[in-house]
Amino acid sequence: MPLAHLRDMYRDVRQKFEDYCAPLEIEDYGLQAVAETSPAKWHLAHTSWFFETFLLKPFMPGYQPQHPAFEYIFNSYYNGVGAQFPRPQRGLLSRPTVAEVYDYRHAIDDAMLRLLESTNGDQETIASRTELGLQHEMQHQELFFTDLKYNLAQNPLCPVYVEAPGHEEPSAPPELAWNSHDGGILKMGAETGSGFCFDNETPRHRVFLEPFELANRPVTNADVLAFIEDGGYRQPALWLADGWGKVQEGHWQHPLYWRQQDSEWFEFTLHGLKPLNPQGIACHLSAYEADAIARWMDARLPTEFEWESVAQGQPVEGHFVDSGLYHPDTPTPDTLFGSIWQWTSSAYSPYPGYRPAEGAIGEYNGKFMCNQLVLRGGSCVTDPRQVRASYRNFFYPPDRWQFSGVRLARDYCK
Amino acid sequence: MPLAHLRDMYRDVRQKFEDYCAPLEIEDYGLQAVAETSPAKWHLAHTSWFFETFLLKPFMPGYQPQHPAFEYIFNSYYNGVGAQFPRPQRGLLSRPTVAEVYDYRHAIDDAMLRLLESTNGDQETIASRTELGLQHEMQHQELFFTDLKYNLAQNPLCPVYVEAPGHEEPSAPPELAWNSHDGGILKMGAETGSGFCFDNETPRHRVFLEPFELANRPVTNADVLAFIEDGGYRQPALWLADGWGKVQEGHWQHPLYWRQQDSEWFEFTLHGLKPLNPQGIACHLSAYEADAIARWMDARLPTEFEWESVAQGQPVEGHFVDSGLYHPDTPTPDTLFGSIWQWTSSAYSPYPGYRPAEGAIGEYNGKFMCNQLVLRGGSCVTDPRQVRASYRNFFYPPDRWQFSGVRLARDYCK
Amino acid sequence: MPLAHLRDMYRDVRQKFEDYCAPLEIEDYGLQAVAETSPAKWHLAHTSWFFETFLLKPFMPGYQPQHPAFEYIFNSYYNGVGAQFPRPQRGLLSRPTVAEVYDYRHAIDDAMLRLLESTNGDQETIASRTELGLQHEMQHQELFFTDLKYNLAQNPLCPVYVEAPGHEEPSAPPELAWNSHDGGILKMGAETGSGFCFDNETPRHRVFLEPFELANRPVTNADVLAFIEDGGYRQPALWLADGWGKVQEGHWQHPLYWRQQDSEWFEFTLHGLKPLNPQGIACHLSAYEADAIARWMDARLPTEFEWESVAQGQPVEGHFVDSGLYHPDTPTPDTLFGSIWQWTSSAYSPYPGYRPAEGAIGEYNGKFMCNQLVLRGGSCVTDPRQVRASYRNFFYPPDRWQFSGVRLARDYCK
Amino acid sequence: MPLAHLRDMYRDVRQKFEDYCAPLEIEDYGLQAVAETSPAKWHLAHTSWFFETFLLKPFMPGYQPQHPAFEYIFNSYYNGVGAQFPRPQRGLLSRPTVAEVYDYRHAIDDAMLRLLESTNGDQETIASRTELGLQHEMQHQELFFTDLKYNLAQNPLCPVYVEAPGHEEPSAPPELAWNSHDGGILKMGAETGSGFCFDNETPRHRVFLEPFELANRPVTNADVLAFIEDGGYRQPALWLADGWGKVQEGHWQHPLYWRQQDSEWFEFTLHGLKPLNPQGIACHLSAYEADAIARWMDARLPTEFEWESVAQGQPVEGHFVDSGLYHPDTPTPDTLFGSIWQWTSSAYSPYPGYRPAEGAIGEYNGKFMCNQLVLRGGSCVTDPRQVRASYRNFFYPPDRWQFSGVRLARDYCK
Repeated sequence: MPLAHLRDMYRDVRQKFEDYCAPLEIEDYGLQAVAETSPAKWHLAHTSWFFETFLLKPFMPGYQPQHPAFEYIFNSYYNGVGAQFPRPQRGLLSRPTVAEVYDYRHAIDDAMLRLLESTNGDQETIASRTELGLQHEMQHQELFFTDLKYNLAQNPLCPVYVEAPGHEEPSAPPELAWNSHDGGILKMGAETGSGFCFDNETPRHRVFLEPFELANRPVTNADVLAFIEDGGYRQPALWLADGWGKVQEGHWQHPLYWRQQDSEWFEFTLHGLKPLNPQGIACHLSAYEADAIARWMDARLPTEFEWESVAQGQPVEGHFVDSGLYHPDTPTPDTLFGSIWQWTSSAYSPYPGYRPAEGAIGEYNGKFMCNQLVLRGGSCVTDPRQVRASYRNFFYPPDRWQFSGVRLARDYCK
Repeated sequence: MPLAHLRDMYRDVRQKFEDYCAPLEIEDYGLQAVAETSPAKWHLAHTSWFFETFLLKPFMPGYQPQHPAFEYIFNSYYNGVGAQFPRPQRGLLSRPTVAEVYDYRHAIDDAMLRLLESTNGDQETIASRTELGLQHEMQHQELFFTDLKYNLAQNPLCPVYVEAPGHEEPSAPPELAWNSHDGGILKMGAETGSGFCFDNETPRHRVFLEPFELANRPVTNADVLAFIEDGGYRQPALWLADGWGKVQEGHWQHPLYWRQQDSEWFEFTLHGLKPLNPQGIACHLSAYEADAIARWMDARLPTEFEWESVAQGQPVEGHFVDSGLYHPDTPTPDTLFGSIWQWTSSAYSPYPGYRPAEGAIGEYNGKFMCNQLVLRGGSCVTDPRQVRASYRNFFYPPDRWQFSGVRLARDYCK
Repeated sequence: MPLAHLRDMYRDVRQKFEDYCAPLEIEDYGLQAVAETSPAKWHLAHTSWFFETFLLKPFMPGYQPQHPAFEYIFNSYYNGVGAQFPRPQRGLLSRPTVAEVYDYRHAIDDAMLRLLESTNGDQETIASRTELGLQHEMQHQELFFTDLKYNLAQNPLCPVYVEAPGHEEPSAPPELAWNSHDGGILKMGAETGSGFCFDNETPRHRVFLEPFELANRPVTNADVLAFIEDGGYRQPALWLADGWGKVQEGHWQHPLYWRQQDSEWFEFTLHGLKPLNPQGIACHLSAYEADAIARWMDARLPTEFEWESVAQGQPVEGHFVDSGLYHPDTPTPDTLFGSIWQWTSSAYSPYPGYRPAEGAIGEYNGKFMCNQLVLRGGSCVTDPRQVRASYRNFFYPPDRWQFSGVRLARDYCK
Repeated sequence: MPLAHLRDMYRDVRQKFEDYCAPLEIEDYGLQAVAETSPAKWHLAHTSWFFETFLLKPFMPGYQPQHPAFEYIFNSYYNGVGAQFPRPQRGLLSRPTVAEVYDYRHAIDDAMLRLLESTNGDQETIASRTELGLQHEMQHQELFFTDLKYNLAQNPLCPVYVEAPGHEEPSAPPELAWNSHDGGILKMGAETGSGFCFDNETPRHRVFLEPFELANRPVTNADVLAFIEDGGYRQPALWLADGWGKVQEGHWQHPLYWRQQDSEWFEFTLHGLKPLNPQGIACHLSAYEADAIARWMDARLPTEFEWESVAQGQPVEGHFVDSGLYHPDTPTPDTLFGSIWQWTSSAYSPYPGYRPAEGAIGEYNGKFMCNQLVLRGGSCVTDPRQVRASYRNFFYPPDRWQFSGVRLARDYCK
């Protein structure tokens, strides 16, 4: 990406995060209900830390770090950079204050924009790392939404982050239908030279697929209600063994943010507590729930390659963060992108020939390639600039706090 | 206490809490590092809840609660009032905001002052409950300090709550000396009609004491340093069995807030990280440490009655919260009150004939009479209006986050 | 005790343990369901270890230890002797086998009897330590019964240790009645020179007691049934705060070994699963349950001194282990001893002037004087030779696996 | 398999388990150190339960179960059969005794042999289920060895299960060398009609493989020693993130059964504690360790299909349980089978078109297809009749108590 374009993108992406934070009270910035859901303030600082650590310190001559302790307290998991403040305690950092974190952020922005205007140095590395930093930032902006939702949900006052935008009510969801695909030897992964991608999408390589069918829409809340009413959360035969263990240990009886009051179903959303919309796309499902619902519907999760092979032919269009509606809506037929991350049955593993980047930045993706599953497609709180057919998101099977749902697949039987 | 006097005291005590909070950043108000250390905001609200629940609701005609959810979220442990928001999650309540909590507090103050000016109703009960509410508030003000200290101590930036006031350096601590006491049949507990007391100080009753000796000053940091240098934290023979278990489980090697950097000792205080003052009174000791240090010094903890029998003859004077120095200093000889709470070997048990108050307010003290030890004397963050010879504070033996230390006792041997 | 008498007692006490083990299968000897309930095999070995460690090694010239590893694996908690094999893993020691442990035991017996016949050495210390060893052994024999019961209770087959002996059915339990006592200054603790006692019963000292009343019989199963039917396990107002926490955490709804099948109550006993006998003395109550039941019956637990003051005038007669009935029966009026250990409200603390024995043997009692409550009286699985008015047993308030129950007390009100 | 042949196999396989148990003491049969390592007695009973549940009950007319409680206590995880006695408590079942379990086993054997001689009923299903039962039994016989080893290892006496057989010392291990393979579209999974296989090996299907290289021998203890000496257990850069978490949480510094005494390395084996053999194949590695060692050796784990593609051309020969040497030895070049299970990087997932069997027996494999990795090859305690190129074993990445090691792979680069 040319530097001029990159400067614009830098300004835009960085500003977006401040826009997203605008509705917060100071008190909201520090919430961390569980280790996974970092405070908004920490995300604001850590994304700045990324630019300071991987661009300003190595590439800006004479750069002085903003604060001696920030390298430690805002390092997420880069052992190559140094020790990290314990993740479960990020919510205990009342200092630096929100104002001080914004000061830090703005100081980094000033320095970054100066760096991006400089004509010295290794401009190619600076450009590619800056782009990586912006993609990293957009990932954390999505986590800002999902973590905030989880943290606010602990409060019996059910705080509203922002009111839902007025929007045209979509018509009823399409009937579930199946599109069949031939399979065969197909190329998967990001193509070199076709724009930004993460190392985990490479190298492009061949995969053999058997014929399969993919559903025309994700599973809806009405589908999940039917699953619940059929006793789905009480029948071990529908569940993976580890999933059934989790159902019992966590007393799961419905998706994460559903609540039943006087036999009415409600759902906590970033727009407050709302009556459950049966026509809406189901979200905040763990992979275990996704898998059990699929089995109950006589189907299965797609592999990541089945999904990617279909997505390769589609435009990246759908319901993303720019809509201002931070909750999935009624599905649009045959749209693979947006609304929810779709669980696949594929373990998050390295592609044949995969090599992580050199140095600490190589810890970005590779070291997480164990125990997690791939999700595809992007959600209603994803920036569309992050999404492409080859993008691999990954979470642990029991994780539920992402906007994750399920699109069914099945073997093709003539 | 006459109502006019009570109104003055009400205004004064309530204002004090706001004064104590003045140095905080908004972000500090919500910190809760462990279940025991509630957020400042919660203390501000809960003490108001106490007046709303036990005075305004029952005694003010037509009183409308400030918020339907506050009865639940600001109830500490009164099962007789209703369910309670889980204690470990108080730090997750970003709403109500700090400003809203102050609004709540001020609305309660307005109503309470009206109630205290009214000439109707059961004035005697209103007066005695108001006094109880103010004593309750002062207890929470002390917890405000101890909880805040623990919560700030988690931050590697070592935040300063306020700078220490300039004060005259005390001279060297007195040499350890022993005052002997005859024992015999003595009266213990609060005398009826001699001012406010909690139910757990009653009824006044007779106790037989064998002759004993009590130290002229508490154990100092120099004493604890000598204990450490002698391997005190590594010798099981010095410890109670449960204490030794805790030493190993918690990897205890020194008192709670001590830190060693390059062989120099420092101590985290509400005035920031300071070089350890060897002449200062040792604090933040668990009862296990207090007991082990006493054993190592060939002494023991006093019983609560030994302590009380000596304190009965002394004025309540010493180092309390009104000094503005929120850390113990060099000891003054033969002063039993102030600076630190002194662990006793006495289990927190009911006195013979003890009866808790009727109703939910009876949960104040009685239900905690198990597994805890009594501490006596008041600390540098205690309001002196709380302290008297018969006052019984109580914590669990492993607790370390209070300003707790040790005054030695021993059997009298001619 | 004269050595000749001691030899007889040694043979008798040691033989008893083998008699108690006779009904076991080899497989039963190794069971350990929780850290507290050691395997029978371990008790057999540890009691032998006690004689080897504290008598044979120091006092028998040229004594060679039976096995180099036994000092470690059969040490319970004596830090002065050395490190200990982790208590929760005693059940994992399939070797030494049962036969090898009996060989160890018999080798110790041979050596001990030789030592007790020798006319050399410090005969006084040998005699007093041997007596201590036998009292220690009887304590472990009682634990053999309580631990075995807990361990067998985990088995859905409800194994029978031995059949209950045929015995005359007692008549109905006496009506609950109260005996009043004057209190005053009373002497408590063991009298010097009046036979064996533990260090924790000394020194004899004066205590002042207010007048009180003590029940003529312990609480029965019928009393506990009434408590349950009145919702006793669901009313927090009846419970100490820590007790209520335990009720919720452990989902307590009845005493430990009670089971309800088709609305009939049964109780697991060492004689198998039996229909609950309403007339029987209630047992396997924690101190929390004892306290809650007492409160519900408008009474309280006695202090250990109230109990002891009444017991001082009684013969040590009652239902003990020699009956062969290992479960409490219908109460006999006004008998303080036997059937069940009676919880007192007294913390297990040192008496004024208490000094533990020198050396490792001083770890026997003193280091446990924290967080536990005193129980008095002896149970149906206690050897009567252990019991006396001044004997202090001690357990943690939540402990339920001992034969522990409650005798009510109350303040005396004319 | 013809029934006559099956009867012989039945007798042989069932007898083998009793032979394996012959060296045990009665006390050893009940050991269970952690939930995963079931007691030998339980394995003996559960394998009999399998025949009783899936063959005798449905197919033998008039069959009476041996004991009403066994269906419950010896059910492992078949929800379709009913509830299960909690796995972590299997070691608490001292009853039925070892003798009673053998009685149970023999009663099942008698009935099974009668069933296999009968000419009525659904002989095809009986034959295929019997074969499944025998394969199931051989799997549990392997677990008998691995569980016993773990359980005995807890004992500081280091019990010897059996002495190692005398055997010719193998020569030095071959130098590490690489065999290259072309990849391409290859058929994977069990071929229909070519003998027994589990459902998880089906259906046979096509997979595309890039060219790769596979090592001629597994990693040896000398390799692991070099890894340790290079600080491998202290460098996070070598580890997967979850692996590094486990290293820290478990304080891992070497493979599971290694012990260092006075700078000498020893290894606990089923033949007792032995000096570590540097030439031996490394075993008891978790997948995390396997992955880290591979990374440190500039290689990676193979995928299960890479491994299978090479194994397809090899005879199933190697070091298995029939050798009587229950520990891996010096490697033989280019032998893929035996000695150790080889971790692959492949998640244990269903093959395209996979269908589990109908009914409770369908819980055998399918419900475990999440969070586990595939291992291939068979170990020194595997029965060779279980092993084939398509056999998929599976364990969780942190698991270390199997005989699991690593054969390196790498991408092919000309």
